[in-house]
Amino acid sequence: MVSSCDSKDRLRLWIRLLRSSRAIENELRERLRREFEVTLPRFDVLSALHREPDGMLMSELSRYLMVSNGNVTGIIDRLEADGQVARSRRDGDRRTSIVRLTDKGRTEFEAMAAVHETWVDELLGELVPADVEKVSTVLHDFNLNWGTRV
Amino acid sequence: MVSSCDSKDRLRLWIRLLRSSRAIENELRERLRREFEVTLPRFDVLSALHREPDGMLMSELSRYLMVSNGNVTGIIDRLEADGQVARSRRDGDRRTSIVRLTDKGRTEFEAMAAVHETWVDELLGELVPADVEKVSTVLHDFNLNWGTRV
Repeated sequence: MVSSCDSKDRLRLWIRLLRSSRAIENELRERLRREFEVTLPRFDVLSALHREPDGMLMSELSRYLMVSNGNVTGIIDRLEADGQVARSRRDGDRRTSIVRLTDKGRTEFEAMAAVHETWVDELLGELVPADVEKVSTVLHDFNLNWGTRV
Repeated sequence: MVSSCDSKDRLRLWIRLLRSSRAIENELRERLRREFEVTLPRFDVLSALHREPDGMLMSELSRYLMVSNGNVTGIIDRLEADGQVARSRRDGDRRTSIVRLTDKGRTEFEAMAAVHETWVDELLGELVPADVEKVSTVLHDFNLNWGTRV
């Protein structure tokens, strides 16, 4: 069967994608605040750093999280003050700093991340496995190709 | 074939959903700003009102857009000052106001919306029709059932 779709179908998909994403994000934001007194942007920064044990440049972090450099800087300042991240100079470069999780930051993030994963599992729990796999694959390919489009 | 999935698969899906949604949203925000000097929250409010010719209560608007009432109020104030929306009292209720698009607001929104639709069509253009339909259906059911879960 050959199916077709037009710009209305794509617009509808975009609105549904945005609504589901916003609903899940709002719920996770509220739970993170309530359970751990942590903001979502702060959790996102910790999560990104957790994936990169060797650390990230501020610009990489900003690009990965798709938020402005200024926002990330403020969050890193606060995480550093709380001892969850550490900045270090890159070899031979006095201006660029690499940010890493500290042991404290890693331990505290992992405790939150384990609970966060159960929330996501619950909130997405109604999706049947085949749909989880299908939508995940479609969005993965979409994200991979994003940079070639904009 | 029976497939299965665990919390890691759902977490991966959530991260991909968030990343695609954020990437598209950022790009649309930037284009709306550049082409029409309009903010995304303002466009979203106009879009919601455009779907409801009879108008919406502030609380409905806030719930539909999944943002706080305070944020919506500020946007409505500015749209009213620009003559794009009008507030009116609900019959027999002196405290609750209904917000509607004015003719000016409708005309100006429709011009932007037509261009916005071509952007979405372009940005989602690589998705094959069968995937557009499948993901759209999965997310629609998900959104419909959302209220029963949280």
